[in-house]
Amino acid sequence: TFSRGIQTVTLIPGDGIGPEISTAVMKIFEAAKAPIQWEERNVTAIKGPGGRWMIPPEAKESMNKNKIGLKGPLKTPIAAGHPSMNLLLRKTFDLYANVRPCVSIEGYKTPYTDVDLVTIRENTEGEYSGIEHLIVDGVVQSIKLITEEASRRIAEYAFEYARNNQRTSVTAVHKANIMRMSDGLFLRKCREVAENYKDVKFTEMYLDTVCLNMVQDPSHFDVLVMPNLYGDILSDLCAGLIGGLGVTPSGNIGANGVAIFESVHGTAPDIAGKDLANPTALLLSAVMMLRHMGLHGHAKKIETACFDTIRDEKVLTKDLGGNAKCSEFTADICRRVQDMD
Amino acid sequence: TFSRGIQTVTLIPGDGIGPEISTAVMKIFEAAKAPIQWEERNVTAIKGPGGRWMIPPEAKESMNKNKIGLKGPLKTPIAAGHPSMNLLLRKTFDLYANVRPCVSIEGYKTPYTDVDLVTIRENTEGEYSGIEHLIVDGVVQSIKLITEEASRRIAEYAFEYARNNQRTSVTAVHKANIMRMSDGLFLRKCREVAENYKDVKFTEMYLDTVCLNMVQDPSHFDVLVMPNLYGDILSDLCAGLIGGLGVTPSGNIGANGVAIFESVHGTAPDIAGKDLANPTALLLSAVMMLRHMGLHGHAKKIETACFDTIRDEKVLTKDLGGNAKCSEFTADICRRVQDMD
Ligand SMILES: CC(C)[C@H](C(=O)O)[C@@H](O)C(=O)O
Ligand SMILES: CC(C)[C@H](C(=O)O)[C@@H](O)C(=O)O
Repeated sequence: TFSRGIQTVTLIPGDGIGPEISTAVMKIFEAAKAPIQWEERNVTAIKGPGGRWMIPPEAKESMNKNKIGLKGPLKTPIAAGHPSMNLLLRKTFDLYANVRPCVSIEGYKTPYTDVDLVTIRENTEGEYSGIEHLIVDGVVQSIKLITEEASRRIAEYAFEYARNNQRTSVTAVHKANIMRMSDGLFLRKCREVAENYKDVKFTEMYLDTVCLNMVQDPSHFDVLVMPNLYGDILSDLCAGLIGGLGVTPSGNIGANGVAIFESVHGTAPDIAGKDLANPTALLLSAVMMLRHMGLHGHAKKIETACFDTIRDEKVLTKDLGGNAKCSEFTADICRRVQDMD
Repeated sequence: TFSRGIQTVTLIPGDGIGPEISTAVMKIFEAAKAPIQWEERNVTAIKGPGGRWMIPPEAKESMNKNKIGLKGPLKTPIAAGHPSMNLLLRKTFDLYANVRPCVSIEGYKTPYTDVDLVTIRENTEGEYSGIEHLIVDGVVQSIKLITEEASRRIAEYAFEYARNNQRTSVTAVHKANIMRMSDGLFLRKCREVAENYKDVKFTEMYLDTVCLNMVQDPSHFDVLVMPNLYGDILSDLCAGLIGGLGVTPSGNIGANGVAIFESVHGTAPDIAGKDLANPTALLLSAVMMLRHMGLHGHAKKIETACFDTIRDEKVLTKDLGGNAKCSEFTADICRRVQDMD
């Protein structure tokens, strides 16, 4: 049903370079005749009743209606008590799975050539529970909360993802040797779920060992599933292997088809508005979005055009080693997309 | 005072390949005429009064007397309720600083050639507090405990280390954007201590950002200080950059000169007793120990011999890419040490 007719997607351009790279994505989508129409919304937090920070109602309603969002970078909160809007969005829409594919990009040189893995991060609890206390003066505790339900849910997501994306193995990443109860529960759920996916290989590894092996030979890894903080760390590490957050897509997936796709780099205020930004991360996130919506043809076309432009090395933004403007890089991708027709 | 006369060091050979690599170190120390005599102790846990697992009293007494220990790998505990002896040792002797220098080894090829950094990990609290609860069925919490005292202590250690080892910067690694109170406290103490070390540059970075930048360009990092779990992860990541745990030394430092130096690789049961193990990690840990004891001349000699053997590429153990036995590799280092006289 997703693949019929024009669908509306909530677009959150974000701060800093957000508007520029959003414009780039819209242009490329137009060139590719992607059957998407955008509903632009701002998510700058507002103070709700009782003084709680919240997502502006228009943005919330738009997401609730459209179910799918594409989001650029947001400023880190500075005001005391102001939450991270990135986290608030994940929480508000119960986006429990954070999915970050990391694939080596031909033409973009890094010490690694054969990265092809996906980190799947539990996105709602764990170390991100936000529960902290001052016990006595000088002694603070933070609570890591792990539930059976969220652990099973993310494990199921990981195995489904593996099965539906021709992946062969799922590795549960944990420190159950140290956090025996919490990571132990997470691991137990992964093992249980693995029983139902005999076609997918299941392994378990300590987080520290994964980090060590990852920098030595990432080619061994396939789908990795883990609690919240470990995913935060490992997804950034893996992004580093293929060139950084400027080229890494990300999706936050909830139940019933709700999802927000986002670039996870910063707002780059120093180059904002100068037509110098690299839209690749947001574009590849938008490609993930198209696949999520069942629009595989358009996804493939745009992805191919983007990788061709990078491999070609003629029209690259500064961070990719060239001196093209954002608009030139975008135009090159548009041209390739149109040439495919 | 450390550098006069023969000193006794507690030697914990450990399990698996532990005895072989310990023998290798003893031989090389003998060749280098290091003024050390060894007191060998076993630390296989025993059940104390009340059923609690504990370090055998002879090992504990030896450490209390000698203050300095060298330790090979220990089997991971399998019995339920059996603690990790590695952790128990750190706890028993209040070894609050885990120090792991990572320096690129000439001749041992990895994608990185210019790693030269030290991870300094808080070793007594944080995520390793061991406090966990079942809240209700299916909901578990683990407590991360951060104290002002331990945070200040490790920050001071890091800055002292930087100053005494001609290092120019200390980076505090944290996730205070998420764990505002606990990592916030840790960070605050680092900032306070930094005030007293104006000769050392102080920076702060998010753990995820450090991981990303680390795999892209480790040469920017110098001394890194962080809470327990982050140190566990980052030290393994960094070890991976220079060749893995087989070549990475480690020291656990307590107050008043107490310290245990250890190789942090596994017991390698598959090759144990076959004269195939690589003693480098334990040897370089022993070199750290010599420096800690003020025996800089002997440290330099042994370290140089070890690196020369590796650079020479003629007599290498299997994991280093050669086919020499442990005893042959050891003999080559001994010969070089003796040639220096
Ligand atoms: C922005 C920040 C709160 C966030 C996180 O810590 O999860 C980011 O690092 C990420 O990975 O999306
Ligand atoms: C053996 C294990 C308990 C230990 C840890 O988690 O600290 C190890 O990984 C280390 O880094 O020394």
